[in-house]
Amino acid sequence: MKLDGVPSRTIWLESDGWSVGIVDQTRLPHEVTQPTLRTIEDAARAIKTMQVRGAPLIGVMAAYGVALAMRTDASDANLERAVTFLGAQRPTAVNLRWALDDLRTTLAPFAPSVRAAAAYARAAELAEEDIETCRQIGVNGLALIKEIAAKKGGRPVNVLTHCNAGWLACVDWGTATSPIYHAHDAGIPIHVWVDETRPRNQGAALTAFELLQHGVPHSLIVDNAGGHFMQQGEVDLVIVGTDRVTANGDVANKIGTYLKALAARDTGVPFYVALPFSTIDWCTKKGSDIPIEERGEDEVLRVQGRLSDGSVASVLISAEGTHARNPAFDVTPARLVTGFITERGICAASREGLLSLYPEKTSAAA
Amino acid sequence: MKLDGVPSRTIWLESDGWSVGIVDQTRLPHEVTQPTLRTIEDAARAIKTMQVRGAPLIGVMAAYGVALAMRTDASDANLERAVTFLGAQRPTAVNLRWALDDLRTTLAPFAPSVRAAAAYARAAELAEEDIETCRQIGVNGLALIKEIAAKKGGRPVNVLTHCNAGWLACVDWGTATSPIYHAHDAGIPIHVWVDETRPRNQGAALTAFELLQHGVPHSLIVDNAGGHFMQQGEVDLVIVGTDRVTANGDVANKIGTYLKALAARDTGVPFYVALPFSTIDWCTKKGSDIPIEERGEDEVLRVQGRLSDGSVASVLISAEGTHARNPAFDVTPARLVTGFITERGICAASREGLLSLYPEKTSAAA
Repeated sequence: MKLDGVPSRTIWLESDGWSVGIVDQTRLPHEVTQPTLRTIEDAARAIKTMQVRGAPLIGVMAAYGVALAMRTDASDANLERAVTFLGAQRPTAVNLRWALDDLRTTLAPFAPSVRAAAAYARAAELAEEDIETCRQIGVNGLALIKEIAAKKGGRPVNVLTHCNAGWLACVDWGTATSPIYHAHDAGIPIHVWVDETRPRNQGAALTAFELLQHGVPHSLIVDNAGGHFMQQGEVDLVIVGTDRVTANGDVANKIGTYLKALAARDTGVPFYVALPFSTIDWCTKKGSDIPIEERGEDEVLRVQGRLSDGSVASVLISAEGTHARNPAFDVTPARLVTGFITERGICAASREGLLSLYPEKTSAAA
Repeated sequence: MKLDGVPSRTIWLESDGWSVGIVDQTRLPHEVTQPTLRTIEDAARAIKTMQVRGAPLIGVMAAYGVALAMRTDASDANLERAVTFLGAQRPTAVNLRWALDDLRTTLAPFAPSVRAAAAYARAAELAEEDIETCRQIGVNGLALIKEIAAKKGGRPVNVLTHCNAGWLACVDWGTATSPIYHAHDAGIPIHVWVDETRPRNQGAALTAFELLQHGVPHSLIVDNAGGHFMQQGEVDLVIVGTDRVTANGDVANKIGTYLKALAARDTGVPFYVALPFSTIDWCTKKGSDIPIEERGEDEVLRVQGRLSDGSVASVLISAEGTHARNPAFDVTPARLVTGFITERGICAASREGLLSLYPEKTSAAA
């Protein structure tokens, strides 16, 4: 998607053919910087400090991290060291672990002399696979938006989204945002309601930023406001991403998603979840089996932003001594979800729906 | 309620018998200051700058403002001037207009020589009436909390509230908070989930502050989190305030109330609205007839709080150039409301329910 008017990815190989460029997401939305990573230590730092975030992007970053390590020492011992070192940067990130296991398996059979080249090739492949998956989600979601647009007689299609399931979490396109970008690029008038998504404000800081950069009309709203706009007929469609979909179609996503799904159901607005195959957890039967991470209270008690002098600071919003609770996700029951938009098509939010798109998973599904 | 350990009101007559003390709410929650108002200009400034806010409190403040004006010049002309001047400070505040009309009508028949005394007496009466109304709401709501407590075997009753319908909006007790304070003071273990209530964060800044000062256990949460805690069985009861209840029982309240009512319905949690008689708008048939105020986008784009050096500042949470929409209220349909808690008792959220408590309004009800 566009950044400063230029089509960009979140991660890329620099023109020297070996160093790796990224968009530093810790500086967004207030500053766009694109550091160059030259060592495995640089890659590890990018993962740990969340200069790169989002499951697909972290996986690709880790693959390039292994490639950078193989340039200087492609021995078995260093491959093992690189995989362990990178994996330790965010121990609970499933996709990081998955990508590193993939790299180890891919590289092990090769002689050390060709491992660096093989690692770069595999990293590029992972990046292209992610882009293609996201692109297909967009193509499939575009059909839904076209149907709505056909009924609106030239008025914009209003899509509400929560949190950031955008290209900044992926390599390009994003998941929930991909249908939006496809529609916009196809000339369909579209307007996005962007939930700010407290406590970390990913909607305000990342989704609104993405849409602004790409030129997609949008309005930032507080998380409280979406239901009201649905009541007023100002939302045609909700599309959100997800962290995990269980085998029965329940959806774990950023805290607050459940409330928007309830409002969509109450007002008759279609509620879709966009996801790649890798987000389906076939081994977990239902949403209530997912443990919900609780994060530190400071995310609730403080808000980060830019001061009038341009510096970035955090402010305390309550009295000294106030305590907070901070569940990171909630579970939206499948019954509230109109459908899933995946790279293979659109399906019902149910075991049967998922298996209709992924029949090869029939034996794996819980 | 308690402030710094001392039972306090939001407004009071100072010991000199004529000047008026208030809690300056623009400094909360970061600083407690209690300025003394000595002139009608002081009172006007307190209303305009929202040192005092909340419908009942603004009315009492206006009454004391007239009293301060009558001390120096109790002529008909000055009474008229005082009413006009104070009313202009917040032109859309219905309760301000109502209190000023009341003062004008009350004082007009008196000779100028006794008007100041009459104004002080009426202001004190309005304050006492508000306290008594709020106290009765608390007594009636306490019965609900006692019922729940009886089933919890000593575990705390968990009450969720949204925005600030607390004693800081009234003279004492508050509306939604009154049952909570009554339960706490009666020794019933209680814990309050406080929605931060973006965009203006009245929950974080005022409700959490109130509860902290009075010693009521509570946790601040983002507006996104309430639904999740209801799903987890961690909410026994929701009590919110309201800006206006229409004749059919629809509830206009701070943006986001509707989403919590939906979650309460979906999870089987009782959802109550606490209100005094003056909040019932008998002349408006239903919620969709209420025009919803949209406020400036800066409230969404910026968040105010305290910096680490102790100063108060606002930070921009999105990129320069992002636009926002900011509806201040939403309407919760009566069908989602379990009941109303008023100073006369508890009733169903319907025309019939309201008229059962206020039969004298039968001819007025739309």
